[in-house]
Amino acid sequence: MDKTYIFGHKSPDTDTVTSSLVMCELEHKLGNENAVACRLGSLNKETEYVLNYLDIEAPELIESLEEGSDVILVDHNSPSESIDNLENMNIKKVVDHHKIALETSYPLFYRAEAVGCTETILFKLFNENNVEIEAKIAQLMLSAIISDTLLLKSPTTTEDDKIAVEKLAEIAGIDYEEYGLEMLKAGTDLSSFTIDEILALDAKQIDFKDVKSIVNQVNTASIPDVLEMKDDLEAGIEKIIEKENLDLFMLLITDIVNSNSQVIVLGKDAALVEKAYGVELKDNTALLEGVVSRKKQVVPIMTENA
Amino acid sequence: MDKTYIFGHKSPDTDTVTSSLVMCELEHKLGNENAVACRLGSLNKETEYVLNYLDIEAPELIESLEEGSDVILVDHNSPSESIDNLENMNIKKVVDHHKIALETSYPLFYRAEAVGCTETILFKLFNENNVEIEAKIAQLMLSAIISDTLLLKSPTTTEDDKIAVEKLAEIAGIDYEEYGLEMLKAGTDLSSFTIDEILALDAKQIDFKDVKSIVNQVNTASIPDVLEMKDDLEAGIEKIIEKENLDLFMLLITDIVNSNSQVIVLGKDAALVEKAYGVELKDNTALLEGVVSRKKQVVPIMTENA
Repeated sequence: MDKTYIFGHKSPDTDTVTSSLVMCELEHKLGNENAVACRLGSLNKETEYVLNYLDIEAPELIESLEEGSDVILVDHNSPSESIDNLENMNIKKVVDHHKIALETSYPLFYRAEAVGCTETILFKLFNENNVEIEAKIAQLMLSAIISDTLLLKSPTTTEDDKIAVEKLAEIAGIDYEEYGLEMLKAGTDLSSFTIDEILALDAKQIDFKDVKSIVNQVNTASIPDVLEMKDDLEAGIEKIIEKENLDLFMLLITDIVNSNSQVIVLGKDAALVEKAYGVELKDNTALLEGVVSRKKQVVPIMTENA
Repeated sequence: MDKTYIFGHKSPDTDTVTSSLVMCELEHKLGNENAVACRLGSLNKETEYVLNYLDIEAPELIESLEEGSDVILVDHNSPSESIDNLENMNIKKVVDHHKIALETSYPLFYRAEAVGCTETILFKLFNENNVEIEAKIAQLMLSAIISDTLLLKSPTTTEDDKIAVEKLAEIAGIDYEEYGLEMLKAGTDLSSFTIDEILALDAKQIDFKDVKSIVNQVNTASIPDVLEMKDDLEAGIEKIIEKENLDLFMLLITDIVNSNSQVIVLGKDAALVEKAYGVELKDNTALLEGVVSRKKQVVPIMTENA
């Protein structure tokens, strides 16, 4: 029997990695024993922390798949963030919480909701299908919701996310605030990364209308600590802009304690950020007050102003 | 409070019309009292039969909406089949069973499954939300599933559709086969239509890669009866091809009793049908054995061969 490969987006984060594991568990429980959890890149520190904590093996790293493979997409739907030649795959299902950027020539199972985290939707799918959620699975889900909503403080947070966290914490038997802060802090540790690695950690290629852009986000408990690397980061960004022929690169340095982002902006369309947020870039950087969500506070505003 | 306009595709069929009514009922039950069921065109004979039978008022006919209106799409997602300037609407939800052809700049509730009918998904949504299905609502749902699956005989029919029909027939308290055949027959009555009206009844604009096409489908209990109008139909088709600058027009005349379709094909890319189905067009027509589903047996095959 052919395998069903389940994976999230490139530059995987905690939601993408845990969602492939949790969706795989759901598929198994629903009788699809050929489902395999996969990932398209290295784990970040936060996700490593989660998997170590729970003693769960990471999804299988894959780089390509044969044409016609059965796949399930979680936490993304855009071909640009997915496996290469997605158009030649047989997409069986999508479970996601992002804008729609996929075109298919066939109907499929597509489940998206405007909630903070893919795992909140998976939590519903378990319930709708009357599949019991085991303690470890609950904590995987919980970790992703905390990660994506920055402990339920991001403006992407919905009532559904809060309900899910409450119920999942009960099943997992943990204090989610205490666990969540430790997990988030583990994710901000940049000490072992090169500049190039930092710039790839959570980079998403997003076109704001005609403005070809990459928006990268790095979480921290201290913005000044990250700004110490500013010159090296800018040199790295310049290289990426040239290589990828970008019009714009935004690096959001997000303070997870105070819920602000310092943004470093380079590229010929840098002024778009000034226009969109009414800020002035000084030495290519500005503080974006209250901005913590790329999806909710960057993509729509930048697109509108592009 | 602003209204939420719920509508299906242009050239509305029974699934599209009943889904807007049923989705509206669900929204009301879930607390969105501002939901209004709408439609983008005239009712067909089959849908008229259903609404008359149940003594239910048709959804409100709308032609346009103000920019920024809240909308819910049922039974479609493609902007080409939707209200004009859909890109300026605020799409709150989509419930659909077609391929994905929508791009958004924001996340939304999107629920699609590869089942035979939108109502099968709505049936699940009622259950998932623990909303009781009243007898009339059950019969609306049932009517659409019978319509889209030709009494569960079309290859688009899934196990989920069958389960839904069984449960809904129980709630509605009817013999669904008897009712269904009467309903389908009511839908094949073309006597009151002009040629131009027949050619617009269930016409979908579909591009097979670069081949700009319209595929129209007419159900009948007797193909020869419809072929009596062949010359007039072809003249009407030629006019549409010229007006819409089409490469291809396919008129499927689908025999709902024997599950075949006679196809009339015009346009400069007519040979694509011969290639796709391995048939020879004689006088612009051929029998497509076993073909009853535009979605499953026309769109993918024509796209592949284009």
